[in-house]
Amino acid sequence: MQKIIELQELVNKKIVSNTYSKFPQELYDPLDYIMSLGGKRLRPVLVLLAHHLYSDKHEEALDAALAVETFHNFSLIHDDIMDDAPIRRGKPTVHEKWNHNTAILSGDVMLVKAYELLVNYPSEILPSLIKLFNKTATEVCEGQQIDMMFEKQANVREDEYLKMIELKTAVLLACSLEMGALIAGAPKVEAERLYEFGRLMGIAFQLQDDYLDVYANPEKFGKQVGGDIIANKKTFLWIEAHRLANPEQLKILKHWENISVFKAEEKVAAITGIYNDLEIPKLTQEIINNYANKAFEILATINANEQAKALLVKLSEDLLVRET
Amino acid sequence: MQKIIELQELVNKKIVSNTYSKFPQELYDPLDYIMSLGGKRLRPVLVLLAHHLYSDKHEEALDAALAVETFHNFSLIHDDIMDDAPIRRGKPTVHEKWNHNTAILSGDVMLVKAYELLVNYPSEILPSLIKLFNKTATEVCEGQQIDMMFEKQANVREDEYLKMIELKTAVLLACSLEMGALIAGAPKVEAERLYEFGRLMGIAFQLQDDYLDVYANPEKFGKQVGGDIIANKKTFLWIEAHRLANPEQLKILKHWENISVFKAEEKVAAITGIYNDLEIPKLTQEIINNYANKAFEILATINANEQAKALLVKLSEDLLVRET
Repeated sequence: MQKIIELQELVNKKIVSNTYSKFPQELYDPLDYIMSLGGKRLRPVLVLLAHHLYSDKHEEALDAALAVETFHNFSLIHDDIMDDAPIRRGKPTVHEKWNHNTAILSGDVMLVKAYELLVNYPSEILPSLIKLFNKTATEVCEGQQIDMMFEKQANVREDEYLKMIELKTAVLLACSLEMGALIAGAPKVEAERLYEFGRLMGIAFQLQDDYLDVYANPEKFGKQVGGDIIANKKTFLWIEAHRLANPEQLKILKHWENISVFKAEEKVAAITGIYNDLEIPKLTQEIINNYANKAFEILATINANEQAKALLVKLSEDLLVRET
Repeated sequence: MQKIIELQELVNKKIVSNTYSKFPQELYDPLDYIMSLGGKRLRPVLVLLAHHLYSDKHEEALDAALAVETFHNFSLIHDDIMDDAPIRRGKPTVHEKWNHNTAILSGDVMLVKAYELLVNYPSEILPSLIKLFNKTATEVCEGQQIDMMFEKQANVREDEYLKMIELKTAVLLACSLEMGALIAGAPKVEAERLYEFGRLMGIAFQLQDDYLDVYANPEKFGKQVGGDIIANKKTFLWIEAHRLANPEQLKILKHWENISVFKAEEKVAAITGIYNDLEIPKLTQEIINNYANKAFEILATINANEQAKALLVKLSEDLLVRET
């Protein structure tokens, strides 16, 4: 994974060199702040990796890499307001550290900055890049809206949930890959296959996130195991359990969802017990494998640098088994 | 002005035909709502008018016209949240009618829709259009931030104020004109002159807004005369009065600013009295005329359809004397 770390470092150097701060400082400080909070830089690394499938000139793809990371961080700032989240990557969220108005406006200017980072690409590919980015940005907003609507719904169907995570999470990974390929001059059909690889893999990653929230090794997991259960979050596991539960199990699920005073570990143990009885972990891993296998089948059809392809496979596999 | 009304009608037809609503409805309803609230459609009309200087094919400029109107309405949705404004054009604001989260997210998707409306222009002009739009959108955010900062400052200098209204208001009018010209295939240098015309005229319009808030004919004015005075808003008139006031006048100004219980008409009368004594209306009209005259001088150097130029002059003059 040496190469992946190198690409992460390229992204981090680009972020540091691309400081947004200028007048008025109050508007731009939150941009530098959230970009400095770190993270895996998955989306920009995917841009560079897809580009690397067809080219060795990484620097050519750096503006687009920064564009998707900038867009992702814009969406984090606004989502954190909407979710009333106090902490992001162990630090205060932008609306907590500054205020709501600054978080709204700094997010807005950050979305514009993402477009600014794309506009210097050659005019032969610029329309494709901007159209793809527009479509993706629209879908990410749609995904966030649907996710917020789920909170108020009594129930969510599996197909609705899969569509939501596709929009909210997967399409930006897909877009990152297609952009990298387009910038390297890959044939349109191959760039689109990489999009499809990213879309399927992105859904698999999010389902794995849902799985790990319950079944991760607590010593390796960065946050509280069972957090989604405690918050009654309608994850894939929640939806499957409600679909498959018998009347008695459903009664227990509803009981824990409806009481407001409880011991967290008791609620997590009770609901995890039902998940286990219903074989939800196995079912979830099967569907994750389905998505991942379809994704890898598509990747196999791509005519590109085999070493770079192996890196993309390795990165995907690592993301699918992380922290368990 | 028959032609101007025709252009407004073209814009309104385009808005109606371009309904944004699709799934999820909760995300898109606010877009249709705010776009349907009407208004003068000044920015899209400026796109069409600048385009008309060089071409008769109005329909060619309609997407860009809708893009700037969409952007303008995005900024209204987010500004209304930040300003905690309950009413926009006589109707509830988006965050009042729905909620804050919907207003944030619908605004975000609206900003993306503005880019979507630009992306089908020919690749020879697309980079110029997007760059101009990025720069303008960034500056509008900067202007809003500076305006919010003014509320917390004890004082604001004239040059700071002029810069703020340039960013918050004038550059979008300027951008509208330059876009229209670029789409019609006008020479770059002429498109830039139209930008400068719009920038200067936009500053003049905003100063006239400040003036009318105090000196409009109450029977013709759409809102309460003296609203800015009642709210202690740091307008051009406020800034000039504080700059020119003698110690006694300053004491009276501060008195009215600091008391929280007062009769509105008494406060408006007292402060308007000081404005009159200091000849602020005359000074304001002089600076408005300076900006407008410079703008018209620039317009005079443009080689374009004289009838269309006359329309642009007429529209500008009407905006400069409206409602008095």
